[in-house]
Amino acid sequence: MSCSYGDLFRLTVFGQSHADCIGVVIDGIPAGVTLDLDLIRAMLARRAPGNAAFSTARKEADLPDILSGVVDGVTCGAPLCAIIRNTNAHSADYDALRNLPRPSHADFAAFWKHEGYADLRGGGMFSGRMTAPLVFAGAVAMQLLRDKGVTIGAHIASVGEESDDAFDPVGVTGETLEELKTKPFPVLNDQAGDAMQAAIAAAKADGDSLGGVVECAAVGLPAGVGSPMFGGVENEIARVVFAIPAVKGIEFGSGFAGSKGTGSENNDPFCVDENGNIRTATNRHGGILGGLTSGMPLLFRAAFKPTPSIGKPQQTVDLQTYEPKTLVIPGRHDPCVVPRAVPAVEAACAIALINLIGT
Amino acid sequence: MSCSYGDLFRLTVFGQSHADCIGVVIDGIPAGVTLDLDLIRAMLARRAPGNAAFSTARKEADLPDILSGVVDGVTCGAPLCAIIRNTNAHSADYDALRNLPRPSHADFAAFWKHEGYADLRGGGMFSGRMTAPLVFAGAVAMQLLRDKGVTIGAHIASVGEESDDAFDPVGVTGETLEELKTKPFPVLNDQAGDAMQAAIAAAKADGDSLGGVVECAAVGLPAGVGSPMFGGVENEIARVVFAIPAVKGIEFGSGFAGSKGTGSENNDPFCVDENGNIRTATNRHGGILGGLTSGMPLLFRAAFKPTPSIGKPQQTVDLQTYEPKTLVIPGRHDPCVVPRAVPAVEAACAIALINLIGT
Amino acid sequence: MSCSYGDLFRLTVFGQSHADCIGVVIDGIPAGVTLDLDLIRAMLARRAPGNAAFSTARKEADLPDILSGVVDGVTCGAPLCAIIRNTNAHSADYDALRNLPRPSHADFAAFWKHEGYADLRGGGMFSGRMTAPLVFAGAVAMQLLRDKGVTIGAHIASVGEESDDAFDPVGVTGETLEELKTKPFPVLNDQAGDAMQAAIAAAKADGDSLGGVVECAAVGLPAGVGSPMFGGVENEIARVVFAIPAVKGIEFGSGFAGSKGTGSENNDPFCVDENGNIRTATNRHGGILGGLTSGMPLLFRAAFKPTPSIGKPQQTVDLQTYEPKTLVIPGRHDPCVVPRAVPAVEAACAIALINLIGT
Amino acid sequence: MSCSYGDLFRLTVFGQSHADCIGVVIDGIPAGVTLDLDLIRAMLARRAPGNAAFSTARKEADLPDILSGVVDGVTCGAPLCAIIRNTNAHSADYDALRNLPRPSHADFAAFWKHEGYADLRGGGMFSGRMTAPLVFAGAVAMQLLRDKGVTIGAHIASVGEESDDAFDPVGVTGETLEELKTKPFPVLNDQAGDAMQAAIAAAKADGDSLGGVVECAAVGLPAGVGSPMFGGVENEIARVVFAIPAVKGIEFGSGFAGSKGTGSENNDPFCVDENGNIRTATNRHGGILGGLTSGMPLLFRAAFKPTPSIGKPQQTVDLQTYEPKTLVIPGRHDPCVVPRAVPAVEAACAIALINLIGT
Repeated sequence: MSCSYGDLFRLTVFGQSHADCIGVVIDGIPAGVTLDLDLIRAMLARRAPGNAAFSTARKEADLPDILSGVVDGVTCGAPLCAIIRNTNAHSADYDALRNLPRPSHADFAAFWKHEGYADLRGGGMFSGRMTAPLVFAGAVAMQLLRDKGVTIGAHIASVGEESDDAFDPVGVTGETLEELKTKPFPVLNDQAGDAMQAAIAAAKADGDSLGGVVECAAVGLPAGVGSPMFGGVENEIARVVFAIPAVKGIEFGSGFAGSKGTGSENNDPFCVDENGNIRTATNRHGGILGGLTSGMPLLFRAAFKPTPSIGKPQQTVDLQTYEPKTLVIPGRHDPCVVPRAVPAVEAACAIALINLIGT
Repeated sequence: MSCSYGDLFRLTVFGQSHADCIGVVIDGIPAGVTLDLDLIRAMLARRAPGNAAFSTARKEADLPDILSGVVDGVTCGAPLCAIIRNTNAHSADYDALRNLPRPSHADFAAFWKHEGYADLRGGGMFSGRMTAPLVFAGAVAMQLLRDKGVTIGAHIASVGEESDDAFDPVGVTGETLEELKTKPFPVLNDQAGDAMQAAIAAAKADGDSLGGVVECAAVGLPAGVGSPMFGGVENEIARVVFAIPAVKGIEFGSGFAGSKGTGSENNDPFCVDENGNIRTATNRHGGILGGLTSGMPLLFRAAFKPTPSIGKPQQTVDLQTYEPKTLVIPGRHDPCVVPRAVPAVEAACAIALINLIGT
Repeated sequence: MSCSYGDLFRLTVFGQSHADCIGVVIDGIPAGVTLDLDLIRAMLARRAPGNAAFSTARKEADLPDILSGVVDGVTCGAPLCAIIRNTNAHSADYDALRNLPRPSHADFAAFWKHEGYADLRGGGMFSGRMTAPLVFAGAVAMQLLRDKGVTIGAHIASVGEESDDAFDPVGVTGETLEELKTKPFPVLNDQAGDAMQAAIAAAKADGDSLGGVVECAAVGLPAGVGSPMFGGVENEIARVVFAIPAVKGIEFGSGFAGSKGTGSENNDPFCVDENGNIRTATNRHGGILGGLTSGMPLLFRAAFKPTPSIGKPQQTVDLQTYEPKTLVIPGRHDPCVVPRAVPAVEAACAIALINLIGT
Repeated sequence: MSCSYGDLFRLTVFGQSHADCIGVVIDGIPAGVTLDLDLIRAMLARRAPGNAAFSTARKEADLPDILSGVVDGVTCGAPLCAIIRNTNAHSADYDALRNLPRPSHADFAAFWKHEGYADLRGGGMFSGRMTAPLVFAGAVAMQLLRDKGVTIGAHIASVGEESDDAFDPVGVTGETLEELKTKPFPVLNDQAGDAMQAAIAAAKADGDSLGGVVECAAVGLPAGVGSPMFGGVENEIARVVFAIPAVKGIEFGSGFAGSKGTGSENNDPFCVDENGNIRTATNRHGGILGGLTSGMPLLFRAAFKPTPSIGKPQQTVDLQTYEPKTLVIPGRHDPCVVPRAVPAVEAACAIALINLIGT
C-alpha cells in the first residue's frame, strides 16, 4: 500500500532521491481536460529549492516530463505518468553515511525494514524530494477542484517560535489563498515573515535547523463531502499529509487548543447568513463535522519537525561495529523545510479532497 | 470506503446508535486462535458508560454476540462477525431534533450528505456508540499483538486545563500500560486525575462539557514496521484514530511542541543500550522515523473536542423554515468523553499496527 | 481480501453454513431508497431449496433480517447489514467427515489453509449456502440497476448433456429476462427443461449428480462502462462469478467457440438501427469491447461442475492416519445446483455492474 | 481501479500504444533481490513480434528501462518503475480511423467512455502492446515464485480448429513448462504446431485472422493458497487474465467440458502417492478446490478471439455523420495473437499467484 493512494483519483508514487527519476502515475483524471501547465509549473516552483536563505543548495529544474495519458496537452483517460529527472544528485556525499544512521532520519528504521538493501542515498524514497511528484499530482487535483469551485491555499503559520496570523476561520477567501501563492515567503503578516526568515538565517548560521507549522484552508466545498468512520475528511487528509516527510502532527479547526475549552466555548452555533444560507457563526470545527464537510472553510494545521540534517556534530552508532561515532552530516540541506512544504500540504489536501468528491 | 479498514486485518463496521444493533466483521484473523473473551469484555467495559460523575446515563451491557468465525471459542479462519444489541435507545428524545441541527454535531453535514434520509437518532452512525465495535476489533487486534510481544496502553493526558504526567518516552513499560487498564480513571498521577474529575463534575453541574487529550503508547514493536509515503505508521494510526468521533488532532512524539525547537534540540542521538542494542537516547520521534517504527516506544496524543451535547441553550436554525431557534438538547450525554475514549484510542492503535505487521 | 468486494458498492460477506447465521454488510447504497422487499424475497426464493426433484432437502425460510442501514424500510446511508439465520443445520452429519476429505470439495485445501481449524460443517464458508447473502446483495444491486434502466436475467443453458436454446444475442429483451424469473425451472425452451429435469432425476436415482451452464444477460447498459486492464467488465464479472462455489469457467459472447473461427466470422460490423443509433449487427463480443460495455446486450456463460457430494462410494484418505478410506457422504445435497445457481449468477452480474456504474 | 492490481505485489500499468512509452510500477518486491534480467528479457522476447509468418511487422526492441527501485541490479524496497519506449509507432496509420470504429475493437466503446478524447492511435491503452509491461511484471513475479519452488508455463492449446495435446493434468512437470519456453512456437506436439502455423499463414494470405486457446499450468504450489468468496485463486487469475486484450473466456480444470459430466465422473478421489503424500488420483479440479490450491498442478485455459484487425473490408459507421462506411484497416497487425499471448498468460498467472502467496 505504501506508494498508492485513492480510489477515484488514484496515484502511485515511485522513485528515490538518487534514482534516475522520481515520478507518479495518476489514474482517474477524466478525458478531455486540458492540463494547466502553468498551474503545475508554478506549484512545483514553489516547492523547488530557491531562496538561498532558507533552502537547500541542490537546485533542479524539476520540470515534469509527461510520459502518458495526455495527447496534445489534453488528457485521454489513460493513466497519466509524469517523471522528474534527478540530474543533480551527489551520491558520493552519502557514501560515508552508509553505516552511520543520521539521527531522526529514516536511515536506521529503513536499514531494518530492508535488511541493509535500502537505497539511502539522499534519503532514498524517504527524501523530501518525493514531495515533487506529490505536488505534481496535487496540482492536477487543484485544477480539477478549481473547476468545481474549490480553492486551496496555505501559509507558514509558524517557524520555530515565530508565528504568523491565523486564517480568518469564517471569512477566509479564495482571493487570500491565491494571493499567498504569489509570495516568495507565504505568510499573512509580512512582519512575522521577516522574523521567521531571520530565525531561519540564525539557525543556519548556527549549523542548526528549525521546524514549524503550515496552516491550510480550502474554500468552496459543498456540505456533506466525506463519510463517517474511516472515510472521513479528517482521516483522508491526515493520511495524505503524513506522507510528507517531517510531518509529526495535524489538527483540524480548534484542534489541541479546543480540547482545553468547554463545549459552550467550542461549539459553533448555526445562523442564517446574508445570502439566506445556513452556516455556522464561528468555525472551531474547521469545516468538518462527523467526518463530513459542513460547507464552512476547511482548516487544518500540520506540524513539521526541525530538519534533522544539521551541521552540528551528533552522536550515532556504526551499524556494523556497534561503536559510537560522532557524525557531521555533509551534503546540502534545508535549515527549514517549512516554506517549501507549503505547496506539499496544499497538494495533500487537494489529493484527499478530489478523491472524496470524485473527478 | 467509509466503513471498512485494512488489508491483512480487515474490519467493516456497521450499525447506527438506534438500529437493532451495531457490529463489526473482521477478516484476516488466523484460524486456531482461542479468543480471549476476558480481554474483550474488559476492554469493552472500560468503554462502557459507568461512573455517573463523568459518563452518560445510558447504560448497556454491550456484551458482544459473536455470529460467525468462531467454533467452540476458537477462530476457524472465516470472517468473525460480532454484534452488540442496542437495547436502551430512547429514540423519542431525538424526534424534536429532526430539523434542528445540534451545534458541532454531525447532523447538519449528514443532512446534506444523505439528503434528509440520514438516521440521526442518537447520532446514527456518527455516534460515539460506534466505537464499541471498534473497541471489539481492537481487543482482538490487541490479543494478536500480545502474542507478538507488543503491548498498547493509554491514559488521560488532559481534561480541559488539567494535565496528567506524560509517559516516559524512553522508559515506558508494558507493566505501566497494563496497570493503567485496571484503574477506574486511567491517569499516571492520581492527583491530576482527581483534579480532572472535579473539573468534569463542575462542567456537568454547569450544563457544560469538557474535552481533553489521550496519550497512547505501544511497546515491544520491532524496528522497520510501516512504509514511506501513504503506508507509514503515522498515516495509518491517524487514519483509524480519526474514525473516533470528536477527535480533532493527533501528534506523534514531540509533535506540535517539537516544531517550535531546533534540530539539535529535537533530534534523537543513537546509542548502544545495556543489552548491546542500538536505540535512541531520547525519543522525540515517538518511535517513528520515515513512517517506520524505530523500535523505541511508539507515542502519540489525540485531541478530543468538548462533547458538543450540552445542557445550555444554543442557537440553531430550522432546516425547513430557516428560522433561528434556541435549542436545549434533551437525552443523555457525557460531560466528557475522554475517559471512555481511552480504550477506543488503544483500539485504533492496535488495529492500525496489526494491519501493518500482519496477523 | 476474501470476503469483501467493491469500491462504490462494497459488500462484505460473513458466516458459515453451520454458524448462527450468514450475512452481508453493504456500504454504498444511497440514502432514501425504499428497499423493494418483494424483489429481495423473490430472488432469495429462487435460490432457496424447493423442488424435491432437483434440490437439497435442507429447507430454510432464508428470510433476511436487516440489522442496520434501513429506517422504516428506507435506506439511511449507513451500511446495510442483513443476516439469515441458520436454523436447520445438521452438524452431526459432518462429524464423521472431520478427517475424511470429500473428493472435489474444499475440505482438503481448507484443512491445509487453516491448519485443521477450518469449520467444515456443512461446507463452512465454502458452502453453496454462502450464495444466500450474495443473492441478497445482488437483489439490492438489481433494484438500483433497474432504476437506471438495466435488467439482468439468466437461464439454465445446459444440465449435463441437455441444452436449452441460447439467448438471442442481439434481440434479447428485459421482458424475456423478467419472464424467466417467474418460471420454476428457468429455461427458454420448456421441452429442453423437461429433459434436464429428467436427467437430474436420473442422476439422483443413481446416487450421482450433474453440472451445467448458466447463461446470463444484462440489457439496458449504456456504452462505455468499465475500464481497460484490470477494471474491465469481464474482469469484474468473472471475479464475482467465481465467488459462487462450483463455478469452473466463464466465457463472454462467443467465448471458447469464437476462438475457433476467423476474424471475419467473429467480428461484429457496425450498423445504424431503426432508432438511428449505432449498434453492432451481430453480438459475438457479448456486449463488451476492450473491457467496456458496447451498449449491446451483455452476455456470458458460467460453467458449474457436477455437485461433488454424491451418494456413491468414493475413495479418500484419512488426514490423520493417511489410510485409504471409502467414503459415503451422508447429509442432504443437491443432485444439481444449476437451477438454484441461476439467481446467484444474476446477483454476481448485478454486483459487478453496479460497482462499475456507481450507485 | 483500472490500471492497478494487487495488495502484496501491487502493480500499476500506464502508457498507450503511441505515447512516449508504456510502463509499470511494482510495489512490494522485497529488498535485496538481484533481478534476473535474462529471465525478464527472455520473457519479453517471447512476447515481442518476431516470426513474420504469424506476427505483426511492428518490431520493437522492447527492452525495459528501469527507472527506480533497483540499485546496482539489486532491489532496494522502493517501487520499481520500468518503461518501454514506443519507438516504432506509425500514428498516421490511425488518422483515417478517428471516426470509423473498427469492428470488435475497443474504439467504439472507448469513444463513449471518454467522450471522444480517447487516444485510439494503435489501440491506445486497449492495445495488445499493453501486455509488454504486464509481461515485465510477470517476469519479476516468476522470479519470486521460482524462489518458492513454483514454476509456471503455457502452450498454445489451439489455433482456430487445430489443437495441441493437453498438459498431463496430474503429471505435468516444471521441466516440461521450462522446455516450452525455449520453443519458437510453444506446443507440446510439434505436428500440431505445424498445422497451426499453416492455418495462420492461410488466414494471413486470406486477409483474415484466427483466435485460439492458451493452456497454462503452475506446479510446485503448496496446498491452501487462496481464499473462499472473492479472493479465490480462480477469481484472481481470471481477474488478471481478462486484462489481456482479446481474452473472452477462461476455464479451470475440466471447466466447460466437466459441466457436461456427472459427479462420479468429475470428482477426483484422494490417494497416497509414492512419497507418502496425499494427493488426488486425477485432476479435473485443475488444482483448485473451494478457491484454494490443492497442491495438484494448477491448470487453466484462456480463449482468445480472432484478431479483430483484418485486411478484409468490413462495415462500420461514421461516428460523426452516422453514415455506413466500408472500412479497410491499414497498419500492421497479427493474423493471430495467440503465440505471442503465451507469455502474457503466464505473466497473469504469476502476478495473481505471487499476490496471493505474498512476496
